[in-house]
Amino acid sequence: MRDTFHDALDAITQTLVDMAMLVKQATKDATTALLTADLALAEKVIAQDDVIDEMQHELDDRTMRLLATQQPVASDLRTLVTSLRMSADLERMGDLAHHIAKLARMRYPNCAVPEELRPAFTEMGVVATRIIEKVGKVIDQHDSVGAIELDQDDDEMDKLHHFLLTTMQNGQWPHSIEMTIDITLLGRYYERCADHAVSIAKRVYFLVNGEYATE
Amino acid sequence: MRDTFHDALDAITQTLVDMAMLVKQATKDATTALLTADLALAEKVIAQDDVIDEMQHELDDRTMRLLATQQPVASDLRTLVTSLRMSADLERMGDLAHHIAKLARMRYPNCAVPEELRPAFTEMGVVATRIIEKVGKVIDQHDSVGAIELDQDDDEMDKLHHFLLTTMQNGQWPHSIEMTIDITLLGRYYERCADHAVSIAKRVYFLVNGEYATE
Repeated sequence: MRDTFHDALDAITQTLVDMAMLVKQATKDATTALLTADLALAEKVIAQDDVIDEMQHELDDRTMRLLATQQPVASDLRTLVTSLRMSADLERMGDLAHHIAKLARMRYPNCAVPEELRPAFTEMGVVATRIIEKVGKVIDQHDSVGAIELDQDDDEMDKLHHFLLTTMQNGQWPHSIEMTIDITLLGRYYERCADHAVSIAKRVYFLVNGEYATE
Repeated sequence: MRDTFHDALDAITQTLVDMAMLVKQATKDATTALLTADLALAEKVIAQDDVIDEMQHELDDRTMRLLATQQPVASDLRTLVTSLRMSADLERMGDLAHHIAKLARMRYPNCAVPEELRPAFTEMGVVATRIIEKVGKVIDQHDSVGAIELDQDDDEMDKLHHFLLTTMQNGQWPHSIEMTIDITLLGRYYERCADHAVSIAKRVYFLVNGEYATE
């Protein structure tokens, strides 16, 4: 009976990793759609969000059933409760990719991002994708070193976000109010994506070490 | 033993209600600080955020201990898991009030909101405060009618948010890029506050009715 239970726990971890990989692809595709005004790709990301949401519901149902039927204690209990929280973070990261794709679609056939900011958004997409890739590994391998590294990636995202804000305010921003609003929101979406990744990393660190990482 | 357990469950509900009341006050104060450029009040909200965070940690520890020691099933299990999720929503709503207060502080002695948008932000503060008040009641009384009503309040918030965006884009917006960015972010904070409230309401509805509210 215990072996079946631990197989079920492993399956939950695997689903979280699968979710992270879907979110990674969605974020990567949303960034490409945004920067190349690719309507078909934006539509794909928008449609894909339901798959991620559905995955979360199925995963949470499975987790709740294990909590109810196996009445786990100690680290098994922590694993299950942490899984519920990580699935919520991943689902929200999927929502943020969805928001980026919707903005790309709203501005089509134009590109929501002006030329001079495209390198920064390309980089934000790269950092986001790398962060989510690491999140998958951290969940899969309970990798607490990787969990700490994520904080550095988050710093990089914060710097890029800061760069957007200063570029808009340097007195030479020639773009419309609409574009200013778009860039402000887009910057926030990428920043929040990284925040949720850090939040997942902290949960894994706690799970492995039984204490919070020192900041 | 079961009675002690149910007392502990009631205490958890009470702490969630207390958290909601703190978040309500923080949101109300943050709005006042924002609209009147009241630095002392902004500082108060910023300091108060630690209290809300600490409350969440203590509450989650207590919830985890009950899960571990009482091994609850059925509705008791659902109540505890839902409590973990609601505390996360409330904590995030506290963060949003904190963000509003920080923006008020950053622009002091100026007011971050231009005169023509102050009525809209006043209204957003009123709607947010009402929503959080209702959230407290919904949690306290497992009130699924109130849970449905929250959707209407959220619609009202969406309309106000939409009004901000259209006002900035009506071709007669005379304000700085900095102010445009501020208003965009502030609008988003209030909108997300309402979203989290709706999320809590849906969780309570599910807890009471065992199914999701039809949209």
